Amino acid sequence: MQRIPTIEVSAHPGECVHVAGWLHSLRRLGAVNFLIIRDGWGTVQAIAENEAELEPLLTVEAGIETVLAVEGLVVSNPQAPGGFELHELSIEIVTPVTATLPVAINKRTLKAQSGTILDHAMVTNRHLERRAILRLGAGVMAGYRATLSARGFTEIQSPKIVASATESGANVFRLDYFGRPAYLAQSPQFYKQMMVGVFERVFEVGPVFRAEPHDTTRHINEYVSLDAEFGFIENHFTVMALLRDVVAGIFACLQAHYAADLALLNVALPVMPPEIPHLHFTQAQELIWRLHGVDERMEPDLSPQGERWLGAWAQQKYGSDFLFVTGYPMRKRPFYTHPDPEKPDYSNSFDLLFRGAEVVTGGQRLHRYDDYLTALQKANLPIEPFESLLETYRYGMPPHGGWGMGLERLLMLLTGIPNVKLVTLFPRDLARLTP
Amino acid sequence: MQRIPTIEVSAHPGECVHVAGWLHSLRRLGAVNFLIIRDGWGTVQAIAENEAELEPLLTVEAGIETVLAVEGLVVSNPQAPGGFELHELSIEIVTPVTATLPVAINKRTLKAQSGTILDHAMVTNRHLERRAILRLGAGVMAGYRATLSARGFTEIQSPKIVASATESGANVFRLDYFGRPAYLAQSPQFYKQMMVGVFERVFEVGPVFRAEPHDTTRHINEYVSLDAEFGFIENHFTVMALLRDVVAGIFACLQAHYAADLALLNVALPVMPPEIPHLHFTQAQELIWRLHGVDERMEPDLSPQGERWLGAWAQQKYGSDFLFVTGYPMRKRPFYTHPDPEKPDYSNSFDLLFRGAEVVTGGQRLHRYDDYLTALQKANLPIEPFESLLETYRYGMPPHGGWGMGLERLLMLLTGIPNVKLVTLFPRDLARLTP
Repeated sequence: MQRIPTIEVSAHPGECVHVAGWLHSLRRLGAVNFLIIRDGWGTVQAIAENEAELEPLLTVEAGIETVLAVEGLVVSNPQAPGGFELHELSIEIVTPVTATLPVAINKRTLKAQSGTILDHAMVTNRHLERRAILRLGAGVMAGYRATLSARGFTEIQSPKIVASATESGANVFRLDYFGRPAYLAQSPQFYKQMMVGVFERVFEVGPVFRAEPHDTTRHINEYVSLDAEFGFIENHFTVMALLRDVVAGIFACLQAHYAADLALLNVALPVMPPEIPHLHFTQAQELIWRLHGVDERMEPDLSPQGERWLGAWAQQKYGSDFLFVTGYPMRKRPFYTHPDPEKPDYSNSFDLLFRGAEVVTGGQRLHRYDDYLTALQKANLPIEPFESLLETYRYGMPPHGGWGMGLERLLMLLTGIPNVKLVTLFPRDLARLTP
Repeated sequence: MQRIPTIEVSAHPGECVHVAGWLHSLRRLGAVNFLIIRDGWGTVQAIAENEAELEPLLTVEAGIETVLAVEGLVVSNPQAPGGFELHELSIEIVTPVTATLPVAINKRTLKAQSGTILDHAMVTNRHLERRAILRLGAGVMAGYRATLSARGFTEIQSPKIVASATESGANVFRLDYFGRPAYLAQSPQFYKQMMVGVFERVFEVGPVFRAEPHDTTRHINEYVSLDAEFGFIENHFTVMALLRDVVAGIFACLQAHYAADLALLNVALPVMPPEIPHLHFTQAQELIWRLHGVDERMEPDLSPQGERWLGAWAQQKYGSDFLFVTGYPMRKRPFYTHPDPEKPDYSNSFDLLFRGAEVVTGGQRLHRYDDYLTALQKANLPIEPFESLLETYRYGMPPHGGWGMGLERLLMLLTGIPNVKLVTLFPRDLARLTP
């Protein structure tokens, strides 16, 4: 008999079906025994009305997480999760499990320290909530790709082993490349800019590496970056308009294809306004001063608290979970940032705040060769490590810009999980290199 | 006026349109001057019938690769590439270029040593043929994802910084991870297997790193691997059947969405037979011996020449560009390979040959905890580095298998380009770390 996924059981009332998966839980009450079988997509309840039906499990003392195949009759039962369950079982053991799990993964929430959860990620990733979060990650990537592909963007995969650090020598991982020093890419920034000269519109979904020695719930040292870059823009507002559509496209994809995961997690997707409200950096500082009496007006950046206040303000004033802050001071932005032609101490850049936290950084980049030479000199950076980048600009580049968005950070803010490591498949941090 | 892509010019005969891009070539004949404008998608010819129309270019001495915007009238001309050209031009310079290109990129083929081409990849990637090849790479990834997603596979992004080498200590890049030794992942093998326990069916498209000290046209040290792994298989033939559909799905995607690139490159897509012919390793050796008198029957692997002969044989006998060779000897396969239950010296593994060269390797993996302990012992490998992997199997895994496919290798075989570096965006080899 052809196996069906557990999520399709409800489509076969009164029929005999074949499911397979893991023994998620087993409740033995003698006369009646409840099994929950979990496969890659969902779960189904199966009822063994006598011990004989359980015999294959009992013989090998197979416990929780045993892999098994079950044939049974689909019976409607309003009390059963999903409204249907399997009766008259025929159980076959595929792979018996006799060891006790390090963390119980069949409870509504995982009851363990985050360190323990992550030490055993190969098992705790099977937990239904955790799995739903990780699957949303796949949904974010799918929605991102679909939206950009539909707008003429070409996907690239740029090299991760590079000869020099992207922006500065700080926080890069060094490696030995056949006896020469090399580094892991902190971002695909320079490569995506080069590829604007080829395809005009490019995006990348790939790992980036940051050797930041911070041990917090907000830092991981390897994460998935959703990058994009495109040419023939007017300024950073062209980039912001596209980004709005891309974020809306991601949520539309989650809504359309990941509704079960969203429901399991009780996640309500944010409403995307047709235009995300925006505020200049200096206005944002004034607002914080005026509304909260905290004076950040001499600071070159916004504080996390300031960002939270701005998020609350955007929510209250515009009913928007999102807010663009534009025009960050040039001295806080990387050397390739395009200045505001009117106010050259400020930049044509932006951060996108989501629920009061930065989730995307982007802007317009320099596109003239001479501007790069000047910018490198101003930043006190040598020319030599940037020669490949400079060659791009020697041979003609249009005004262009783009962004980088952290997948795990977006997932964290979307699901409300307060620890970025808990929304990551197998996180890497200061202390963690396994699993 | 709204800009249109050059490939849409032919849809606007008799209209005035606005295009923008790079000055791909300029032929000045005095009374009439031919410009080719290249944008991210194609090219269009523009005719300046007097010097005055060229004035904006001449004033700044703007040369090849100058970024410009052009308004003109769309005129049908059977002699023009694509059948249409622009007349009555109004030219605006966006970014002038005065430097001479290191390699002429507006000829049909790039006339330079491969080293020179790669040194200036940020510019030579703009060459129409090279760009078409790189765009096919995006098409392969898109077709791969679409086919697997439609079959219930979830995309993952596994960590690239790992605590120990996947298969052996050889050919791994070492790095300093906050004072501890770490490595770059040679493959996502163990992670995708772990994730079979979570999603059952997973795939990944991401970079892998091989520190092989070979300086050949077939080696790069960082490449894009198209991986998949899934559970509840019968044996490697289940994997091979899916792989056939995935490769067919990739070609269907290229046919549907990348026809212009295929035409530019004169690439004919291979015909996929409904079932790819297959041959056991021992039969393959017998065939080579019988047809070519070369005795490889005591060898544990096929020679490149042997693979070419087998490819020719499959073409002649079945009209197939593809051939599966199954059952490679266990001693040549990694420790996690599942043996053939009937002939335990041979494995439930396969290589897929495409036009006589290996393009995919895959097979069934061990799925029982005790089998892993035995296999590690037999391979003389310590248990400690594999503890994370082993924990996966302690808690229940179904029979599973999968494959790894090299994106660049597939592109090389598909386009007939004899150097893998020339089908890679920015290749990394023994000598090359930039651009």
